[in-house]
Amino acid sequence: MADTAQQLSTKHLLGIKDLSTDDIHLLLDTAHTFKDVINRPIKKVPSLRDITIANVFFENSTRTRLSFELAEKRLSADVVNFAASSSSVSKGETLIDTVNNILAMKVDMIVMRHPYPGAGVFLSKHVNAQIINAGDGAHEHPTQALLDAFSIREKYGQVEGKKIAIIGDILHSRVALSNILCLQKLGAEVMVCGPTTLIPKYITSLGVKVEHDLLKALNWCDVANMLRIQLERQDISYFPSLREYSMLYGLNKKILDSLDKEITIMHPGPINRGVEITSDVADSKHSIILDQVQNGVAVRMAVLYLLAGKRI
Amino acid sequence: MADTAQQLSTKHLLGIKDLSTDDIHLLLDTAHTFKDVINRPIKKVPSLRDITIANVFFENSTRTRLSFELAEKRLSADVVNFAASSSSVSKGETLIDTVNNILAMKVDMIVMRHPYPGAGVFLSKHVNAQIINAGDGAHEHPTQALLDAFSIREKYGQVEGKKIAIIGDILHSRVALSNILCLQKLGAEVMVCGPTTLIPKYITSLGVKVEHDLLKALNWCDVANMLRIQLERQDISYFPSLREYSMLYGLNKKILDSLDKEITIMHPGPINRGVEITSDVADSKHSIILDQVQNGVAVRMAVLYLLAGKRI
Amino acid sequence: MADTAQQLSTKHLLGIKDLSTDDIHLLLDTAHTFKDVINRPIKKVPSLRDITIANVFFENSTRTRLSFELAEKRLSADVVNFAASSSSVSKGETLIDTVNNILAMKVDMIVMRHPYPGAGVFLSKHVNAQIINAGDGAHEHPTQALLDAFSIREKYGQVEGKKIAIIGDILHSRVALSNILCLQKLGAEVMVCGPTTLIPKYITSLGVKVEHDLLKALNWCDVANMLRIQLERQDISYFPSLREYSMLYGLNKKILDSLDKEITIMHPGPINRGVEITSDVADSKHSIILDQVQNGVAVRMAVLYLLAGKRI
Repeated sequence: MADTAQQLSTKHLLGIKDLSTDDIHLLLDTAHTFKDVINRPIKKVPSLRDITIANVFFENSTRTRLSFELAEKRLSADVVNFAASSSSVSKGETLIDTVNNILAMKVDMIVMRHPYPGAGVFLSKHVNAQIINAGDGAHEHPTQALLDAFSIREKYGQVEGKKIAIIGDILHSRVALSNILCLQKLGAEVMVCGPTTLIPKYITSLGVKVEHDLLKALNWCDVANMLRIQLERQDISYFPSLREYSMLYGLNKKILDSLDKEITIMHPGPINRGVEITSDVADSKHSIILDQVQNGVAVRMAVLYLLAGKRI
Repeated sequence: MADTAQQLSTKHLLGIKDLSTDDIHLLLDTAHTFKDVINRPIKKVPSLRDITIANVFFENSTRTRLSFELAEKRLSADVVNFAASSSSVSKGETLIDTVNNILAMKVDMIVMRHPYPGAGVFLSKHVNAQIINAGDGAHEHPTQALLDAFSIREKYGQVEGKKIAIIGDILHSRVALSNILCLQKLGAEVMVCGPTTLIPKYITSLGVKVEHDLLKALNWCDVANMLRIQLERQDISYFPSLREYSMLYGLNKKILDSLDKEITIMHPGPINRGVEITSDVADSKHSIILDQVQNGVAVRMAVLYLLAGKRI
Repeated sequence: MADTAQQLSTKHLLGIKDLSTDDIHLLLDTAHTFKDVINRPIKKVPSLRDITIANVFFENSTRTRLSFELAEKRLSADVVNFAASSSSVSKGETLIDTVNNILAMKVDMIVMRHPYPGAGVFLSKHVNAQIINAGDGAHEHPTQALLDAFSIREKYGQVEGKKIAIIGDILHSRVALSNILCLQKLGAEVMVCGPTTLIPKYITSLGVKVEHDLLKALNWCDVANMLRIQLERQDISYFPSLREYSMLYGLNKKILDSLDKEITIMHPGPINRGVEITSDVADSKHSIILDQVQNGVAVRMAVLYLLAGKRI
């Protein structure tokens, strides 16, 4: 890799909010290099050989944990996993104590998933470590936003000027806010689309368009990012019912074919086939869903690599 | 290792059914080499250094997972573990989507344990990966059959012509079918023995003898493979009761001594001491139960190594 | 490292009881070397590159498991984790069978946490492996005692002649017994302090002082080791109530300031802030709680290294 002196402006990756546009471009460029790496027969680089990373997950997320773990191993870091359900957290320990204990064991970086918004920011102010936010409730999920931006850039050559519709349950989404911020910083236009009950009121203050009609949103956008319905969360009411939600906001081939242009379909996964998206859409040539997954590993390698203070 | 050009005829290891007799001999010969490796002070070889393997377990199986994980690490592969109980599977994702997501992260091989018969076959038709079946319900468990055959060959020099009795709960066993197929391909005679209620009707179509009298089975065989009673599965009725089952089909030292010849005792583990087998039998010189466990690592190394397209 | 011929007198680390004073000094000296290692930019040594270690935890202990896992990885050992809750143990397998199975897979050392006192000793008599006791119920937890002694030695230059008060729930503590034995072997004076209901009767036979008044204990000691109240164990009655317990035996800044000397505060973690210790004490300059955590990795490296028969 070339030895430019480019570095991120931040010590942590807590949210897209803290990244400059230059930071994001540097991250995406670096991820591009790492995407080449993971597509070689030899998928590893020795970059982080002397670094120990702890994946601290206070909430299940096999997919994100696996993506981070593969990114870490392909950078040759030492990896330890810490699942909070089986941890001293259940013994009444505070978050700061838990993390300080992990750090005292000479861990260099903490990748943290936490159910509470702001947990990463809070932690970064109270412990002496580099924190990578792997999702804090419905607040930020910066690596997801970066991999989505990377995937759009890969598809179209650039994000600037593209029209992105984020469709579905914006209110409970782990990824909507980070996506909006990231895409706007890269010069895209963003629209959110869903029933009134699932669109938070603060969203207009972010300068995004709001649309309640799926067809209008699709006709407007270049890319539709179909959020998942959280079937496993019984406490969410999909008004008026899941079936009606699916009829009004579910994307199928017929709707896609009715558009007078081709749009790109994204989904953060895991997919509920037949609910927010049908199989003939998810598996169509318009879908870049699996590219997103692969790009996730490359983007996370870039995040870890750049935060570790290395240069490309 | 010698550089012969021998290779397996299959891309996956879904079941013994798909293996030729030559395949099985190649696997056992290769396992023999790896058994030497794991008994050296330096137990690792660099063969799969550039390979990433995901152990995807949709059902608990610490023993099998540990054996595969050790086999993978001793081949220098990168290993990630994916336990489905804590995964997106519980969020409604399909099996194909789950595995395609893992593969998109540039994982090379999938070792899968699944509760449903045929899960591996199904998956191999729908995803572009090498699948190793680590047990699909009561269907196939090919690496167990291979390690059992390896252990018999190690004991007697060959499997051909040997008489093997598989004794106990054939109906719910994860290992019976693969064992029957493997032993028959290697030229052994196979008998199953147990109460009528625990022997499936299709078994006679496989060309095995059926016996309901334990003593007759033991007097016939060279090797008795004592299957485990699944105490943890409350839904199985061991007719007429567990205690009576144990009296009729449990193997103890007195029965063993009453035979007019020496037979070899196997068990796939975990053992219920005092139920299907007593301690004085399990720990006797006739037992090769712990050899089976050790051979399991060698056999799994052979499977992974050969499927990875390497040559010995 | 220098090549002296010093070795431990024991094959296992089952308890402090089995260690000679020379053993303990050798362990602490070796840990000192490893503490330097983990504070270097390159935190790994290749010492145990050909060793496979299984962490077999029959009880949750994320903190201890993580510390051992990091110690093992920094010695370049191959590591497998075995959590008993998801294992064949729940299928009725005996402890000896479980461990013999792991060993048959050519695992060199077993680090075991078990809820029953004496589990490690029992196992060491029945299986052919090196056992490291990572806590057996309320019996011994030798690596915790060693890291505590190491931390005191680091603070004061030596343990000999120091006065250590172990304060709180002695009866249910995993660490009290090992601590008492270790500190006495190193020439310290030990006092236990707590309500009568939480001090076991056998304790006086160990030659420790018993005190029921917190202030008197603090005025006597150089080091106060504040044990944790096990909030998660509903079966323990903290007589007369948790709140009163906390009032009588909880340590706060006001009490600390009232002493006419400076004492050092230790805690085995995880801390219940505001119960057995307040935050202004836990985070004060008198506290060496996080040093204990860091020293834990160094001490465990020393244990594994010396038991592996290597020499410094």
